[in-house]
Amino acid sequence: MARPDHGARTARSGSTRRQFLLGGAVAGVGAAAAVGGDTALRAAAGETPPEPLNGDRTVPFHGTHQAGVATDAQAHGLFVALDLLDGTDRADLVRMMRILTDDAARLTQGEPALADSEPELAVAPARLTVTFGFGPGFVERAQGRGPDWLRPLPAFGIDRLDPQFCAGDLLLQIAADDPLTVAHAARMLLKDTRSFAAVRWSQQGFRRAHGTERPGTTMRNLFGQVDGTSNPVPGTADFDRVVWSDAGWLFGGTGMVVRRIGMDLDTWDRLDRGGREQSVGRYLGNGAPLTGREEHDEPDFEATTAIGFPVIPEFSHVRRARGEPHERIFRRSYNYDDRPVGAAISRSGLIFVSFQADVDRQFVPVQRRLDRLDLLNEWTIPVGSAVFAVPPGCAEGGFVGETLLT
Amino acid sequence: MARPDHGARTARSGSTRRQFLLGGAVAGVGAAAAVGGDTALRAAAGETPPEPLNGDRTVPFHGTHQAGVATDAQAHGLFVALDLLDGTDRADLVRMMRILTDDAARLTQGEPALADSEPELAVAPARLTVTFGFGPGFVERAQGRGPDWLRPLPAFGIDRLDPQFCAGDLLLQIAADDPLTVAHAARMLLKDTRSFAAVRWSQQGFRRAHGTERPGTTMRNLFGQVDGTSNPVPGTADFDRVVWSDAGWLFGGTGMVVRRIGMDLDTWDRLDRGGREQSVGRYLGNGAPLTGREEHDEPDFEATTAIGFPVIPEFSHVRRARGEPHERIFRRSYNYDDRPVGAAISRSGLIFVSFQADVDRQFVPVQRRLDRLDLLNEWTIPVGSAVFAVPPGCAEGGFVGETLLT
Ligand code: HEM
Ligand code: HEM
Repeated sequence: MARPDHGARTARSGSTRRQFLLGGAVAGVGAAAAVGGDTALRAAAGETPPEPLNGDRTVPFHGTHQAGVATDAQAHGLFVALDLLDGTDRADLVRMMRILTDDAARLTQGEPALADSEPELAVAPARLTVTFGFGPGFVERAQGRGPDWLRPLPAFGIDRLDPQFCAGDLLLQIAADDPLTVAHAARMLLKDTRSFAAVRWSQQGFRRAHGTERPGTTMRNLFGQVDGTSNPVPGTADFDRVVWSDAGWLFGGTGMVVRRIGMDLDTWDRLDRGGREQSVGRYLGNGAPLTGREEHDEPDFEATTAIGFPVIPEFSHVRRARGEPHERIFRRSYNYDDRPVGAAISRSGLIFVSFQADVDRQFVPVQRRLDRLDLLNEWTIPVGSAVFAVPPGCAEGGFVGETLLT
Repeated sequence: MARPDHGARTARSGSTRRQFLLGGAVAGVGAAAAVGGDTALRAAAGETPPEPLNGDRTVPFHGTHQAGVATDAQAHGLFVALDLLDGTDRADLVRMMRILTDDAARLTQGEPALADSEPELAVAPARLTVTFGFGPGFVERAQGRGPDWLRPLPAFGIDRLDPQFCAGDLLLQIAADDPLTVAHAARMLLKDTRSFAAVRWSQQGFRRAHGTERPGTTMRNLFGQVDGTSNPVPGTADFDRVVWSDAGWLFGGTGMVVRRIGMDLDTWDRLDRGGREQSVGRYLGNGAPLTGREEHDEPDFEATTAIGFPVIPEFSHVRRARGEPHERIFRRSYNYDDRPVGAAISRSGLIFVSFQADVDRQFVPVQRRLDRLDLLNEWTIPVGSAVFAVPPGCAEGGFVGETLLT
């Protein structure tokens, strides 16, 4: 199913911006400017204009919701959690969030940050989004009241948590279709947090590059599985209901869970294909449920084999993950693949990211059920966990966090 | 200047391959197959066919030279150095290189490796190349004789080498325009090295994503500099002379230097724009020499200012890096950006990679000169260093390394 590219549009000012920044003497600018003319000519001739460069595509920053949630997931995602410094008070939080908002508003539109030290690295936004999340410590320092669910998740039996991937006061989710764009944005933002906060952890993730596959192709994780099929679809009322909160300062915001989950590719590979498909309840080939043919066919949890066993096994991941109608989440995860040294072949996994209006009501019961029993647990191991409240977006002139901080 | 996309072609078998692998029931396959028909229709109507998906593009594996040297640099580059296990003998090396060659030949063409555990991850080669390099230890174990330059580089005053990024018996350079493709290929190859070798170090690098910028745009490093302007151009006699060796078993191969060079972005940012441009001898805006207007203008090293100073400073990087006519190298570097924790903002730099027929004659004098004096040294610090002999390519049925091992 093709998903519309929510919120993406062409930065028409792209070539002008570059021309301004880079001066008239750039070899590339002639070409870029020529494309404008070319596009017009083609349009006049009734032809389809050429696709804009990936680098020039932007996602609007301002709006009711922060970008980076409903946004079609970009190829590269960087998750950085910060701890507030001891001296950082409420007024500092306002200052920090004003500055970070300004940075994000510019960078996502392909403009250098104020006092950008490498402005040339800012010209290709490549659908950059910057999404801010507040941990319990942030809300406390803001002298606000968080939603009840804004606290560490309950302990799960499967967890083997490493504190270096847990918690955090402020989360930056920086995502774009270009790795250099992510690196530059991260640097600009982190420079501006320096007097207020220190990095606690950071995790770098990826999906398929933009253009590797047809738009709307569901991503695959490192187990080779189609991952993300049964997910609310951005732009629908269903999505809005699952994701957006209507509580207090979080109105228009959402709850975010970030779990780092190691995937043991070595033991997984020892399982045969049938066994792998049974463990999840879907085919590896195209992600169709074991009771269907196409990826988006509805799984039939009642279907049984000739000898009376359920076709989708009782303890398969998809059966266990599906709960009461209100227990739904929107997943927007990234793969990670940190290269190990020595005999180990990979240290890989999933930066599992889910958004939901109420973490306790929607996420926790699912995770509880999976904790108790899920065939996938055999090959996966949660090593990091954090919960954030993602405040709503802001209008021009406002700042992210204003509903909490003002 | 637009560089031709050397060796890249469309994998025409792409959709057939997918169709075979994924079965008829895939939602995506209908679309993919439709494109074939669509292409034919458009061609008949005299229209330009749509660009192939990035994922379907392949670089031929077999040939006189290994791919990944003259190949237009892909967006993602992974460099893995292995040490041979004690028991690995010459016959094992033959077996290992046969297996690795087979893996690479398949994966680069979008076919799963033999006994590929995640065949679905192999269908999007995205210009994947796998390039093998032999360290001194490999040649010794092969009971061969390496070129004289195949040894650690001489010690340089600027070096602050960390053994965890130095040396190695076997290098795999795995590069593609898609990060998932790189991860999968790395896993398949490393599984097959397991009984022969262990990973010594690995470094993950990136450039702009495919499609972020117009083809032929020179990459920028994390200092924001245009990096790679003055470089031999693949496909020219000049390139062939600089890069390909004609010595013994290395005939058609080349010498490879991999230096991990930290870049201190914090101190660099304190320097003003003029100072930065002086340190290199080129403009930041478009990479033009300080004596020119366009990126590819020849620097005029004789030009002086009104008061008699050279326009391109005596100690600038480009002046110091340019030597005798035979002291030329082909640079094919990648950025790295490892996210730090705590107060540090970035741990970034360049995986400097250069290819040259004779490391001692071409690379060492340049590095010596830069070591003695180069304004850039103020903000850069070499932390890793390794030299490899990159054997020639092979024909179908042959294997990389056969000229040394048979
Ligand atoms: C590394 C760990 C995990 C892997 C490899 C994994 C993989 C998958 C796969 C392949 C599917 C089927 C396709 C799809 O609908 O996306 C799926 C579905 C799902 N997963 Fe996971 N998952 C993991 C962890 C989790 C966690 C931690 C949760 C939440 C606590 C979760 C919740 C879900 C849900 C809600 C579905 C959809 C079920 C339905 O059809 O209603 N998964 N997962
Ligand atoms: C982090 C370290 C380095 C940085 C940031 C850097 C950056 C640059 C830049 C911006 C240029 C000008 C544009 C171009 O022609 O590419 C350049 C040129 C060059 N660099 Fe480097 N460089 C680094 C290390 C090295 C090293 C280690 C060597 C070799 C030992 C080297 C050799 C060269 C050469 C040969 C040129 C071309 C000079 C000419 O115009 O003939 N560079 N470098």
